Amino acid sequence: MSIRKVVAVLIAEAALCLPLMAQGRLQMASLGDFHLQDGQTIKDFRIGYRTFGALNAAKSNAVMIPTWFTGTSKELEGAVGPGRLIDPSKYFVILVDAIGDGVTSSPSNSPLQPRMNFPRFTILDMVRAEHELATRKLKLSHLHAVMGISMGGTQTFQWMVSYPRFMTDAIPIVGSPKLTSYDLLLWKAEEHAIEADCHWNHGNYTAMPVAGMRAAADIHTLNLTTPEYRVEHTTPEAFPHFLESTERRTLRSFDANDWIRQLQAMMADDVSKPFGGSMRKAAAAVRARVLVVPAQQDHMVNPAPAIAFARLIHAKVLLLTSDCGHLSPGCQAGMLDREVAQFLAR
Amino acid sequence: MSIRKVVAVLIAEAALCLPLMAQGRLQMASLGDFHLQDGQTIKDFRIGYRTFGALNAAKSNAVMIPTWFTGTSKELEGAVGPGRLIDPSKYFVILVDAIGDGVTSSPSNSPLQPRMNFPRFTILDMVRAEHELATRKLKLSHLHAVMGISMGGTQTFQWMVSYPRFMTDAIPIVGSPKLTSYDLLLWKAEEHAIEADCHWNHGNYTAMPVAGMRAAADIHTLNLTTPEYRVEHTTPEAFPHFLESTERRTLRSFDANDWIRQLQAMMADDVSKPFGGSMRKAAAAVRARVLVVPAQQDHMVNPAPAIAFARLIHAKVLLLTSDCGHLSPGCQAGMLDREVAQFLAR
Repeated sequence: MSIRKVVAVLIAEAALCLPLMAQGRLQMASLGDFHLQDGQTIKDFRIGYRTFGALNAAKSNAVMIPTWFTGTSKELEGAVGPGRLIDPSKYFVILVDAIGDGVTSSPSNSPLQPRMNFPRFTILDMVRAEHELATRKLKLSHLHAVMGISMGGTQTFQWMVSYPRFMTDAIPIVGSPKLTSYDLLLWKAEEHAIEADCHWNHGNYTAMPVAGMRAAADIHTLNLTTPEYRVEHTTPEAFPHFLESTERRTLRSFDANDWIRQLQAMMADDVSKPFGGSMRKAAAAVRARVLVVPAQQDHMVNPAPAIAFARLIHAKVLLLTSDCGHLSPGCQAGMLDREVAQFLAR
Repeated sequence: MSIRKVVAVLIAEAALCLPLMAQGRLQMASLGDFHLQDGQTIKDFRIGYRTFGALNAAKSNAVMIPTWFTGTSKELEGAVGPGRLIDPSKYFVILVDAIGDGVTSSPSNSPLQPRMNFPRFTILDMVRAEHELATRKLKLSHLHAVMGISMGGTQTFQWMVSYPRFMTDAIPIVGSPKLTSYDLLLWKAEEHAIEADCHWNHGNYTAMPVAGMRAAADIHTLNLTTPEYRVEHTTPEAFPHFLESTERRTLRSFDANDWIRQLQAMMADDVSKPFGGSMRKAAAAVRARVLVVPAQQDHMVNPAPAIAFARLIHAKVLLLTSDCGHLSPGCQAGMLDREVAQFLAR
């Protein structure tokens, strides 16, 4: 074989490998200035994502999964794999970082609009940015499915209503089309705890509002699972260590400004807004086949609005019942993964 | 009838009326310096109480009811009356203000030990002070019953174990002999929210830590009832007004220092402490006939320790099941009042 031929083969092989080399690597798409629904702009908007598997020739196997509250695409990787929530041997999986998660443009990473200078955004803004990623960057005109957990599920509801013909299937997991008073109370408690901190000063701080974030972390932990789960898994004697380690993890991982802005996005969540507040009309817009997955004992995202919405669109409901509460998708992963795989394959 | 005779009759009648004239009026007993379990002292200790009904000749019908967390004897008055929790036509009812409630000696009212200069105290200290009120001031050597709601129920557990032969009956209602990790997490969240406030500064503040207390009020409201109850009773549209009014009520009514010190008393609650941590040994000390009243869906005082303790002492359990959660004694008042009356009368 001539040198020329060897080089040609190597180049051809490298080209084949390129998509696989990108597997799971964080990629950033620059989308220029991003105009928000309320008229404000995120300057030099960049959105993070990771892909797994390969797009088929028909471009019909793409599945987009946006992140949960304060979560990143990196943390979603555990959902990707054979026998897991989504199988990259069958689907071209796009994990996408929601606005404000510290990877995609966020209060914590924006040079031009740092901290609370970063404008407020909504769940719909997150979804519009993800739609731009899909169409402008990834050149997709359709997704096989949108699915997500928690705030990812909430974005999935928004996708279903705002881009109804863009996906075949939609699977919102422990998400909500509109918050109840209980959800609002929870997020307000966290917001008020952070704002009580003297280092907060509406985001114009130099130090982190450690004490406020600590209280917010406590509130978050309180509602992430059920009382029964906590009592069973943590003895009173083990509690000081448990508390200290969860607080430390939160303080190490999260920026208070990102936390507040994503909280505010969730608190404004209501897919019926463009329909004059009519959930029935919002539901009538949906075209996707939908599997709604609420958790009965969820103390973080109340399941009632998701169940009511499922009824309106005659969607299948897979009710998680474990005392893990909002963490039920993890605790009941085996069953959930099988049901999701079956639903997507039909 | 001679003038002398008329005067004598009037004096006799006035003497008969005296106990009735005191009905429900706040009385303060000065008990001098009160030595706490940990060696510290509350100086010039004063304890507040209100009595209803009359002590019988055998001194066998006195019932003591200590206050709930941040509550006062004034707020307990609603429990007193024919057909209510306790009938003053049958019992000599003593409503007693627990240490730190703003009536009995407290951080908020102590001239010598103001704010966080007021020493930490425990549930046992509350009960020891109430025992002194009963014996030294009211000259009682026995109570027909001790009963209470929430932290009043927690004090009742302590009474049963610490003064086992002092009462015939004991009825702890939504109280706990020892906190679970979930209870601890809730109270830590409230404590941390108050401490995050820049006006807190460990109690050496001049202004109230309004923002911190607001966050603590939110957390309290979150756990006072179940998610289902909140969703059913408050629409998302009514939520802003609901939140503002509950926050305002808390800020108007409560002192942050009192709140913190009573929280700390609750967090240290564990009747098994003097028994080397053995709940079995603590239970073996109990002599009273006991009716334990936990609430199944209680998110403020977890029912598991009360139910486990009831099992150890072979006590009757009246399980409240309403979705009012910790407020079930109010929501299920009719049934509870009847059961308590029957239990006390047996």
